Amino acid sequence: MKLTILGCYSATPRTFTNPTAQVLEIRNHLFLIDCGEGTQVQLRKYKVKFSRIKHIFISHLHGDHFFGLPGLISTFRLLGRESELHIYGPKGIKQAITLFLKLGDSWTNYPLIFHELENKSSELIFEDETVSVQTIPLDHRVYTNGFLFAEKPQARKLDIEAVSKFKIDRSQFNNIKNGADGVQENGTIIRNTRLTLDPPKVKSYAFCSDTAYNEAILPLIENVDLLYHESTFLESEAHLGTKTKHATAAQAAEIAHKAKVGKLILGHYSTRYKSIDLFKEEASRVFEAVELADDGKSFEV
Amino acid sequence: MKLTILGCYSATPRTFTNPTAQVLEIRNHLFLIDCGEGTQVQLRKYKVKFSRIKHIFISHLHGDHFFGLPGLISTFRLLGRESELHIYGPKGIKQAITLFLKLGDSWTNYPLIFHELENKSSELIFEDETVSVQTIPLDHRVYTNGFLFAEKPQARKLDIEAVSKFKIDRSQFNNIKNGADGVQENGTIIRNTRLTLDPPKVKSYAFCSDTAYNEAILPLIENVDLLYHESTFLESEAHLGTKTKHATAAQAAEIAHKAKVGKLILGHYSTRYKSIDLFKEEASRVFEAVELADDGKSFEV
Repeated sequence: MKLTILGCYSATPRTFTNPTAQVLEIRNHLFLIDCGEGTQVQLRKYKVKFSRIKHIFISHLHGDHFFGLPGLISTFRLLGRESELHIYGPKGIKQAITLFLKLGDSWTNYPLIFHELENKSSELIFEDETVSVQTIPLDHRVYTNGFLFAEKPQARKLDIEAVSKFKIDRSQFNNIKNGADGVQENGTIIRNTRLTLDPPKVKSYAFCSDTAYNEAILPLIENVDLLYHESTFLESEAHLGTKTKHATAAQAAEIAHKAKVGKLILGHYSTRYKSIDLFKEEASRVFEAVELADDGKSFEV
Repeated sequence: MKLTILGCYSATPRTFTNPTAQVLEIRNHLFLIDCGEGTQVQLRKYKVKFSRIKHIFISHLHGDHFFGLPGLISTFRLLGRESELHIYGPKGIKQAITLFLKLGDSWTNYPLIFHELENKSSELIFEDETVSVQTIPLDHRVYTNGFLFAEKPQARKLDIEAVSKFKIDRSQFNNIKNGADGVQENGTIIRNTRLTLDPPKVKSYAFCSDTAYNEAILPLIENVDLLYHESTFLESEAHLGTKTKHATAAQAAEIAHKAKVGKLILGHYSTRYKSIDLFKEEASRVFEAVELADDGKSFEV
């Protein structure tokens, strides 16, 4: 699982800072999360293959999280895309994007499929054999969802040494991978767990932006390997966080601590501060395993 | 009069090329012309003061000419803008922009005034004491206007040496500046033209993008000092120009030649060519005073 930050600053795009966008590589998927203005340029810069993006998740309809979407969709068209593109985002997103494309008589040649969200409780919005995605309802000024990306447990792996040692016939291998016990030629049963290895530990990533401090998300994000939690402000500006429904670095760390996550990544920084290191300093007093998002930076689990 | 190119490449924004946007400084105005994705970042890069932009002219509703507009409008709000912003563009632009802002519950605190265009003939869309702006109907796949920016003649200037020589009383100066003749103490009339100097020559700029070769625009752009005419293709791809209603460099030069303009600026290049110098080569065989637009480049008249 690999997370690449394309942009992680709040509010407006600047020459060297970009609004929110991330790509998450998980199993064979490449998910785009949020799409601020300039995201398509960032995708090129970090050499993300456009055709691999099949699902885009939009947290909320503030400009710094979705104003790059009409341009990206249009560019896919210009590049001759044919495969489906699925967009998950708050109700209203379909009408807005559709209107922008229709005005330019630039409807896509590929299927553009909107999945509009309006549920205030967490819901499963994507699932296949390898991965599931569910919403994390957040507390912001407008309807906002974070997203929980989780690998599904893989089948147990055949222990080649064990099946050889116990002289299990090859014809049983598929059944054993699916959980069956093995049977030796003499009829002796060998337990499945002696013939197989544990599958790789499943990994999970929770994206939580934008949001005020909100303990209601704890049950959903408990024990995730990686948590991105916005920290627009430092504690010195906590009053602005309360007013605009954003979190401070200390609050993000408090959530990470209570949810016992593997690692916390901070982002969505206000550009008022002279260094983003201040966010790490503040958070690490509450939760040790903290790192700073920055445009172009990757995190692997 | 000074024109700064913020972006002049067709289709999609890339790391080092930007879609169409320009700022024109004319008298005390700073007009923004088109607003492709990333325009606000380009404005910062070239240190254009955001508050000086009071009028934005959008040629047509293809993404590479207006997808930067919602972001720019939102940024103006975040920066605490209070003064009016006027937006001139094809019918539909108001609904689209309004919808994007409403979805994010991010309506502007400053007055946002749309002037929607749908006339297929040229019309005067802005005028004050110093400058006028009129549309140049273009021939593209969707409803498109170019814009003709023209200074108005200033009042004649008082010739200080002449009024002193003819001993014209100071009380007549204002009338003379407004065209009146002078009268000496003995009653002798001195013609206005002997007491005043010609005002500076008026300057004009015609922006023509996107468009197929279209001689119908000639009467409107005749003798302009500066003509920006799109040249998406070279003659070798003229068939693509015909199909997509774009011009070639040779066609842009033909228009410049027939309109007897002072200088032609080429732009809106397709990124298929290995060098934009090819556009200048092709155009200069037809019209000598040709220059290449490029992101960040300025032209003064």
